[in-house]
Amino acid sequence: MRRRKLKPGTLLGPLPLGMVTCLGQDGRPNIITAAWLGIINSEPPMLSVSIRKQRYSHPWIKASREFVVNLVDEPLAKAADYCGVKSGADTNKFGDLGLTAAPSSMVKAPTIAESPLSLECRIKRILELGSHDMFIAEIVAVTAREELFDKKDRLCLADAGLAAYLHGNYYPLGEPLGFMGYSVAAPHVYRRRMHVLKSRARKGKEAAPAVRAKLGTGQKKPKSRPPDRKQQKNGMG
Amino acid sequence: MRRRKLKPGTLLGPLPLGMVTCLGQDGRPNIITAAWLGIINSEPPMLSVSIRKQRYSHPWIKASREFVVNLVDEPLAKAADYCGVKSGADTNKFGDLGLTAAPSSMVKAPTIAESPLSLECRIKRILELGSHDMFIAEIVAVTAREELFDKKDRLCLADAGLAAYLHGNYYPLGEPLGFMGYSVAAPHVYRRRMHVLKSRARKGKEAAPAVRAKLGTGQKKPKSRPPDRKQQKNGMG
Repeated sequence: MRRRKLKPGTLLGPLPLGMVTCLGQDGRPNIITAAWLGIINSEPPMLSVSIRKQRYSHPWIKASREFVVNLVDEPLAKAADYCGVKSGADTNKFGDLGLTAAPSSMVKAPTIAESPLSLECRIKRILELGSHDMFIAEIVAVTAREELFDKKDRLCLADAGLAAYLHGNYYPLGEPLGFMGYSVAAPHVYRRRMHVLKSRARKGKEAAPAVRAKLGTGQKKPKSRPPDRKQQKNGMG
Repeated sequence: MRRRKLKPGTLLGPLPLGMVTCLGQDGRPNIITAAWLGIINSEPPMLSVSIRKQRYSHPWIKASREFVVNLVDEPLAKAADYCGVKSGADTNKFGDLGLTAAPSSMVKAPTIAESPLSLECRIKRILELGSHDMFIAEIVAVTAREELFDKKDRLCLADAGLAAYLHGNYYPLGEPLGFMGYSVAAPHVYRRRMHVLKSRARKGKEAAPAVRAKLGTGQKKPKSRPPDRKQQKNGMG
């Protein structure tokens, strides 16, 4: 199996997409999309997000020591792209996209009401790593859209139609490959659980998404300057 | 849009899957699968992986200050699951799965030859966060399978058929939704680039994967004890 050596780079994937909200100048809510984002601890639940110092949201997040990570589903993918390539210094992204800044439950940074699931975070530590500062935060509250709960009140995140980021592009998820432990599951357990997983995945696809951000449908473009080339080149990081 | 509040939890996704390799007891190569994993910096390229102190790989990674993150494609998904639920203390995972521990280019920890892309990492810092220790590392080299390069020698990671982890389950990626900047692209640019992206995605699907780990096909189970329930419950973190 021949392999080729590449120069070191940020070639991990697929990566989660987060529309990270904070309060900017004059308390105006802003959104920056990040993929340099991950879970880093289970008890207590913690995540980290890395943001370039030059980005508009950076000083506001740093000063408030709070932010919300709003997950991105397929209808929100185009809005997430917009919030990654445009700067909050130039435009009001909530207004441009027709998104709703709803109050969060534990932090002042707003929740995007249209997002399937939002993680409210309080910063514990900031590490300066070079191009990016890493915000290490505790997840202090989670809210999710009502329709993601089944009749038994269980959260079905598989139904959310979440989008991922890989090497400059956005993707939905396909049909489930397996569940944790499937490599060692007894055949009858495997069949039963895969059946549940796959039928749930189909149901999730059929359920029409309740909302679409303005940019989520069609090719309508907001009136605004072309995106900063450098930001595009830098990716979601 | 009604939302429901949940108790704080690690509900970010989709997450990348990494088969993290190191040298264990007597220099024996081992694999642990992790999803508490993410890019944290661009220049220099850095990633972090969080591993529970109790896991077999933890002290070996900590002592050697090196590891390799091997990305997981669809044929490797079942092997990745196996390496997440089994412990290197009980079994030789490379042997069980028929995977190849190839030399890496810059670190002593091995590369899984069957993995589409491998990130060789050197630890810069370790943070104790609670349940997990976060290994903060620089990506010092990257290798990828020869067939992921196109005629112009460009890496086509979209062709790799990578798998993601979400809330206890594994998924492939679907058809591309867009490219970075698509929300603000001119219509002719949008059409041209989406055409290239989608035809590439189809080609990637048609190209039969060169290798399959032993567990990757069918339901054959290795001879071994049932997985540790607690590890299963804890997820990939």
